[in-house]
Amino acid sequence: MEIREATAADWPAIWPIVREVVAAGDTYTWDPATTEAQARAKWMSGPPARTFVAVDGGEVVGTAELHPNQPGPGSHVANAGFMVDSRHAGRGVARAMCAYVLDAARAEGYRAMQFNAVVETNTRAVALWEAFGFDILATVPEAFHHPAHGYVGLHIMHRML
Amino acid sequence: MEIREATAADWPAIWPIVREVVAAGDTYTWDPATTEAQARAKWMSGPPARTFVAVDGGEVVGTAELHPNQPGPGSHVANAGFMVDSRHAGRGVARAMCAYVLDAARAEGYRAMQFNAVVETNTRAVALWEAFGFDILATVPEAFHHPAHGYVGLHIMHRML
Repeated sequence: MEIREATAADWPAIWPIVREVVAAGDTYTWDPATTEAQARAKWMSGPPARTFVAVDGGEVVGTAELHPNQPGPGSHVANAGFMVDSRHAGRGVARAMCAYVLDAARAEGYRAMQFNAVVETNTRAVALWEAFGFDILATVPEAFHHPAHGYVGLHIMHRML
Repeated sequence: MEIREATAADWPAIWPIVREVVAAGDTYTWDPATTEAQARAKWMSGPPARTFVAVDGGEVVGTAELHPNQPGPGSHVANAGFMVDSRHAGRGVARAMCAYVLDAARAEGYRAMQFNAVVETNTRAVALWEAFGFDILATVPEAFHHPAHGYVGLHIMHRML
């Protein structure tokens, strides 16, 4: 599996992954009805943000995104997002992308990485970020409306780089 | 002092307030070089966001903004911003706007309000939000580069509505 910077030509392979994750509505605070154009503008917004793809056997199996969590005086803290094609789940794609993106963030001079909205029922993601040294700074109570579990908490996770 | 919904005609009176607050670089995670067009797009982005002004003697002395903190499954939690003309500081403008915006958020059906980035050295704001029932859920370490104090923490503050 190769992880590399995404190009505009990758979008047609990225979009089905984003569409599936967002439409499920159980892990991302995106409108499940987000259109392709809106998704592209968010996920491939361009500098200072960067977009990555994980490619296996010529196929895009996952995608990640890295950007400043806040502009201006907060721009030394990164935020990142990760999405994996469900047909390729459980094969270490998210883990490999996280390692890659943490290195990319360090190389770019970010001092920390923060996730603002990790759904507490997304236990696989929470365990993965913890394995990568992220701490749960706080859980915002009832901040996510889960399609199956109702109102659940959103973890704010963080690590210095 | 009257607090009301802002109209497009209010922008010329709002902009000097926003410009001063943002250029100071000590309370907001905005690029201090934010242009007027960028500031207008952020502060008066339109539905679902709302913008308010505090008017005293026909003069705009403060402005506030209310919007979903996250889209989609996170959109029942509000976020808000408040800026006061420094020439009218210490006269209860922020307090009056906060009370107004909390009521507006409740009326709109938001279930909670969250601030993502309250600079810990902005002790007047922290004390005001605490007086309005906000708790500090966490402080993100060194997440704000303050022009005088260097890297300081950002409080994440929250209250149910």
